[in-house]
Amino acid sequence: MNTIYSGKTKNVLEENGKCFLEFKDSMTGTDGVFDTGGNEVAGSIDGAGKECLKVTKFFFEKINEAGINTHYISADVDNNLMEVKRAKTFGKGLEVITRFKAVGSFYRRYGLYVEEGQDLNDYTEITLKDDKREDPLITKEGLVELNLLTAEEYDEIVKLNAKIANIVKDILKEHGLDLYDIKFEFGKLEGSDEIVLIDEVSGGNMRAYKDGEYVEPLNVSKYLGI
Amino acid sequence: MNTIYSGKTKNVLEENGKCFLEFKDSMTGTDGVFDTGGNEVAGSIDGAGKECLKVTKFFFEKINEAGINTHYISADVDNNLMEVKRAKTFGKGLEVITRFKAVGSFYRRYGLYVEEGQDLNDYTEITLKDDKREDPLITKEGLVELNLLTAEEYDEIVKLNAKIANIVKDILKEHGLDLYDIKFEFGKLEGSDEIVLIDEVSGGNMRAYKDGEYVEPLNVSKYLGI
Repeated sequence: MNTIYSGKTKNVLEENGKCFLEFKDSMTGTDGVFDTGGNEVAGSIDGAGKECLKVTKFFFEKINEAGINTHYISADVDNNLMEVKRAKTFGKGLEVITRFKAVGSFYRRYGLYVEEGQDLNDYTEITLKDDKREDPLITKEGLVELNLLTAEEYDEIVKLNAKIANIVKDILKEHGLDLYDIKFEFGKLEGSDEIVLIDEVSGGNMRAYKDGEYVEPLNVSKYLGI
Repeated sequence: MNTIYSGKTKNVLEENGKCFLEFKDSMTGTDGVFDTGGNEVAGSIDGAGKECLKVTKFFFEKINEAGINTHYISADVDNNLMEVKRAKTFGKGLEVITRFKAVGSFYRRYGLYVEEGQDLNDYTEITLKDDKREDPLITKEGLVELNLLTAEEYDEIVKLNAKIANIVKDILKEHGLDLYDIKFEFGKLEGSDEIVLIDEVSGGNMRAYKDGEYVEPLNVSKYLGI
């Protein structure tokens, strides 16, 4: 296989016209402390890539079953490989976050008007993937101004994100976990205008809680029984 | 007159049922350096209040003439007083910014996709007035989530802001100045659902340039010939 891109936690590989994501054991963090929102590689944990792929496979299959299009084709967990349809990100990538509770950066920004942990109604927001500028929040008007999304694409992605977030939330709930917030990425299928869910859906994308206790990203699969 | 509220750069006074803003000589800044975007009082300059009121009177009268509703009734520049209709802010206040050039915080946030100084198409965004949290950017969805605006009010304010910004831009242009960005505040008239422009419209609200050179807020009136 040829490596066509090497990222912080994944490589993109190619073989016989097929495209694969290889899940690595590296973990993101800030100043050497593991933090899934972190923008640098903080170290690596044996088996982290496999763990992430296992959960991603589980959720992508559920999301596909729900009739939502994703870039997922199949997963070979033993080899840390996920076969995907080729898709192009919007610009250098957007993070789309649906929040069910006012925690994290939402609470830090809007604490004048919300209590920490207050319920939110599928509130969805988009940030730019830009390590140097700490993934800035951007409005619909901003995304249109920068030619990253059309107004229609924005509306579609926000709606799709909230829908997928609720699917994941309901599944976690069945396994006794509460989802506070979750982020996804989207892309356009190559040679098409179809917008699909891309990248991964793992513990690292979400803040999940068990009886009020934060569940570490690598422990999510344990609760899912996978 | 009774002082019913004392702010950083203005007091709100009341007499015989009438409401007045008193423009003070205090100037905002950050760490003692004057900066109209600053969130603390950095000092005071003799005549700053009068200067600000003079420009505000000039623009409010032009904006009223253009058929846009504001809280402005009249101004007594000699006594630093502006009579206004009573209006209620949205929450503790919103700042609505229309940008014609990618400078300042817009460029700091979105420099991955824009050149500094690049033209923008009446791009309008809203921040919360919250000194402690450095006036965070907020989306339409966020304002609705926090019950600060309805979706319809958001659309109306954004449209109104861009319209007023263009009126000011055109006037400045006639006097040889280029407007890069400008911020306004809105409120609801007491006992009504009508949304009006409130507060001030002065050099401190805008970034104006003369032949590529930044014009200090207190010098804007000189170019207007007032």
